[in-house]
Amino acid sequence: MRETKSGYEIFRQKTHIIIYGTNTVAGRLFDLILLGLILLSVLLVMLETVKGFDIKYHNQLILLEWIITIFFSIEYVLRIICIDKPKRYIFSFYGIIDLLAILPMYLSYFLAGSNLFVIIRALRLLRLFKILNHPHFSGQSLQLRNSLIASRGKIVAFMYFILISCILIGSLMYVVEGKESGFTSIPISIYWCIVTLTTVGFGDITPVTPLGQFIASLVMIMGYGIIAVPTGIVTAEIAKSEFKRGQDSKQKHCMNCGKDNHGDDAKFCYNCGDELDKNS
Amino acid sequence: MRETKSGYEIFRQKTHIIIYGTNTVAGRLFDLILLGLILLSVLLVMLETVKGFDIKYHNQLILLEWIITIFFSIEYVLRIICIDKPKRYIFSFYGIIDLLAILPMYLSYFLAGSNLFVIIRALRLLRLFKILNHPHFSGQSLQLRNSLIASRGKIVAFMYFILISCILIGSLMYVVEGKESGFTSIPISIYWCIVTLTTVGFGDITPVTPLGQFIASLVMIMGYGIIAVPTGIVTAEIAKSEFKRGQDSKQKHCMNCGKDNHGDDAKFCYNCGDELDKNS
Amino acid sequence: MRETKSGYEIFRQKTHIIIYGTNTVAGRLFDLILLGLILLSVLLVMLETVKGFDIKYHNQLILLEWIITIFFSIEYVLRIICIDKPKRYIFSFYGIIDLLAILPMYLSYFLAGSNLFVIIRALRLLRLFKILNHPHFSGQSLQLRNSLIASRGKIVAFMYFILISCILIGSLMYVVEGKESGFTSIPISIYWCIVTLTTVGFGDITPVTPLGQFIASLVMIMGYGIIAVPTGIVTAEIAKSEFKRGQDSKQKHCMNCGKDNHGDDAKFCYNCGDELDKNS
Amino acid sequence: MRETKSGYEIFRQKTHIIIYGTNTVAGRLFDLILLGLILLSVLLVMLETVKGFDIKYHNQLILLEWIITIFFSIEYVLRIICIDKPKRYIFSFYGIIDLLAILPMYLSYFLAGSNLFVIIRALRLLRLFKILNHPHFSGQSLQLRNSLIASRGKIVAFMYFILISCILIGSLMYVVEGKESGFTSIPISIYWCIVTLTTVGFGDITPVTPLGQFIASLVMIMGYGIIAVPTGIVTAEIAKSEFKRGQDSKQKHCMNCGKDNHGDDAKFCYNCGDELDKNS
Repeated sequence: MRETKSGYEIFRQKTHIIIYGTNTVAGRLFDLILLGLILLSVLLVMLETVKGFDIKYHNQLILLEWIITIFFSIEYVLRIICIDKPKRYIFSFYGIIDLLAILPMYLSYFLAGSNLFVIIRALRLLRLFKILNHPHFSGQSLQLRNSLIASRGKIVAFMYFILISCILIGSLMYVVEGKESGFTSIPISIYWCIVTLTTVGFGDITPVTPLGQFIASLVMIMGYGIIAVPTGIVTAEIAKSEFKRGQDSKQKHCMNCGKDNHGDDAKFCYNCGDELDKNS
Repeated sequence: MRETKSGYEIFRQKTHIIIYGTNTVAGRLFDLILLGLILLSVLLVMLETVKGFDIKYHNQLILLEWIITIFFSIEYVLRIICIDKPKRYIFSFYGIIDLLAILPMYLSYFLAGSNLFVIIRALRLLRLFKILNHPHFSGQSLQLRNSLIASRGKIVAFMYFILISCILIGSLMYVVEGKESGFTSIPISIYWCIVTLTTVGFGDITPVTPLGQFIASLVMIMGYGIIAVPTGIVTAEIAKSEFKRGQDSKQKHCMNCGKDNHGDDAKFCYNCGDELDKNS
Repeated sequence: MRETKSGYEIFRQKTHIIIYGTNTVAGRLFDLILLGLILLSVLLVMLETVKGFDIKYHNQLILLEWIITIFFSIEYVLRIICIDKPKRYIFSFYGIIDLLAILPMYLSYFLAGSNLFVIIRALRLLRLFKILNHPHFSGQSLQLRNSLIASRGKIVAFMYFILISCILIGSLMYVVEGKESGFTSIPISIYWCIVTLTTVGFGDITPVTPLGQFIASLVMIMGYGIIAVPTGIVTAEIAKSEFKRGQDSKQKHCMNCGKDNHGDDAKFCYNCGDELDKNS
Repeated sequence: MRETKSGYEIFRQKTHIIIYGTNTVAGRLFDLILLGLILLSVLLVMLETVKGFDIKYHNQLILLEWIITIFFSIEYVLRIICIDKPKRYIFSFYGIIDLLAILPMYLSYFLAGSNLFVIIRALRLLRLFKILNHPHFSGQSLQLRNSLIASRGKIVAFMYFILISCILIGSLMYVVEGKESGFTSIPISIYWCIVTLTTVGFGDITPVTPLGQFIASLVMIMGYGIIAVPTGIVTAEIAKSEFKRGQDSKQKHCMNCGKDNHGDDAKFCYNCGDELDKNS
């Protein structure tokens, strides 16, 4: 005999569908409202730091932030209640972010200014990727992620090498430029070197001596050339994974002669002329 | 018995050939003059905003702009008259641009300054692609466009991720740098972060504290590294489409069913099973 | 009966070997001295514009320049004399450069300051490529050049599109930013837009209004994204030509079964086991 | 009869294991401590140039530097003692670096300020690559290095061409801009041209005349376009080496002659004609 579910159990199930479901209307609507509130909340924190705006609307900003924080708190509690293994959610990436997104506001009650850390809510915007779990889209994201992970080793080795170069070039520039032109210490010179090598070029520190400008020119040309390296690494990885995907989706197997690389729409084996897809 | 065409009908046909034709001498000449006038018109609006020039030649500039506007108006009316389905033209991309290109000048009669929007005529320069409908050229444009469309999904996902990073880094820099060095609000700090991450580096806002400069260095190295990602995505797409095109041109042709994309070493048509290369 | 050559003819032949030859010791030495003199001459013109240096050594600089110019003049005359078809040399790319490299100095006799154009001698440095006509090196140069030529069409289309975007964005920024912050005319705004879109970012003109900074952010992200396009085009072309070269050099043909894609060091056909290279 | 080893010999062997070994616990620990000390030492030199810090802690900094230097000296002597062919180590890349890393400190005893060159110790950080001689990691480094070496020829040719362009464009800008706007000499103008072409854009020197800004725009667009070239070269090389590696891992093995790189669908060994895949 099946027990009838308690009202609490029914409430849990319904909430679960709304909060965690992404395929029902209610679930989608909830996700959209949530994303909207996250965005609004991030905007509010940003506006709070704009002086002219904060002076005029300080109270309204704080009020709105509190309303959103309370909504997020209820959502957090509901997420824990309506899931079967709450610990798994609480200690997951999104669970920790969700908690960190509400804590600063409560902390600001005791510690003025800590509400600024509400900006961590921006990380909740990553939920969009969860909502958009369209197979095509998530397949592309996954491919991109795998390519980046595959090229990680080479890029770290490259960055390490760049860093050592920056220390040496920075020290050289410190010696060459002296202290008149902004190169006041080796750390500052290294900062300048990174600014230059990455082709950012703020211009807050610039060489003024001819020799300094000559070395700077070499650094720039070097930076211009080596930007090719990470790009080349990542591109090659992406191209490889593209290529693999292309191959994987296309292959058909001939039962007669065993040839594999038939086209997408092949009906007969190109090698022996036997019909493909007889049994499948 | 075939009816003789009215004079109006003949005029319509001739105009159609001149305005829409791209293969006749008259059509080509018309297109060239049109492009020249569009360029001239765009130049005139630009020069009008250069103070020293405007003061000297204001009347001449306005006169020339009116002449071109009237020419464009006549052209617009003729385009509607001489086409069989005027609605399709009016609501097409080029039709709307053509209308928007003449409206601001008439509006400026009532609303001073609105003639600045004549600059929208620059969009008419896109017509060049229509004029140059050489198969080789338009094939390459199409290939480029398809590659960009194919990589759209990945690039949007990437940009979204970058934006979230910029919000977080911008807020961090706002906290670290304080308000002395230009990081006066979170939106400004986010603006700085985008300027830095994209390696533009205006230098209007730069970090001055050691910690700020350290974080900035990390942002720059990150930006330098991740420029590889969109580049890698687009390059892989272009390479893939290049590769496909390359394959297509090498393909064998089946005399029996007409299919083209057989492999290099195919002996039988994969579609109908007929032997390939019988006569060749 | 063979006629004995006149002394002039012998002189012509010897000069020809020294000036045009690149494989003899004398020819190589001449080329090296020539390159050295070109470099020295370019350096001299550069130094002449450095005030502090010019004041001190003006006379020595001018003297040295005259000596080099006279040497180049003699070389130019000899090049014409000792070649069989002087007209072909005179009107060739290098012939015109060689003439332009000596004219400004003589002109400066009549027209003060025109000796600055001696800098055109820098183009003579391109001769290095002629001297280094090592097959490996020139093969790579050729491959690079072909790749760039092959991608020309797509890059021009892309640049045209970017230019139209810059006109529209520049005008928008002119309207948005007003005239307080450096966006004083549409041409200046377009200049700013190019500076920003190419991620150069001088910082001489920067947006100050929130809306202007927002649009600027979009432009930068756009610029950061579309740098991928020319890179992708060129990379795909180079990769294609690399791939082709790789294929061309490797292919071996099996006389028995006709298979083509055997490895570099294959002795037997992988398909039928027949010996390769039987007759060749 | 085997002679018993002297105590000195045993000491030598043990030291060798600690200093040169990377697979024993003691060896790894020694490497880690060494890297930590190198990093600390580099940080100390950097901090010494930061005025505020140096004034406060000058004596402590110097003391620590001397301690590290003495440790490095002992290490250097031990490295020579415990190796069988000391000359090979002394004149190797790492041997020279190790010596240069200790000399400046001793020199500073006679020559004030020379301890700044201690920064050369940063090069010792390259040892990390030696410590991390994990086959996967060093394989990737090697692949990257080979790709860069393979593309060296093309990149040097490209850089030479860029340099000639910079000389000509720099001179043009010097003539166009006159001396009011920072383009005070041709070398400075060339420096500006490199800053602009590499998209660094410090903004310390910027064109102010309309013509100068127009030329600058062309330079920027050119720079934006040609950044594609080194990137394309390196990417194509990396992709090629990736592709080769991918092929290698798929290769079939011949049981008869041991050759590995057979094609995907090979039935017979291309080297000895023996049938492949007999047992597998």
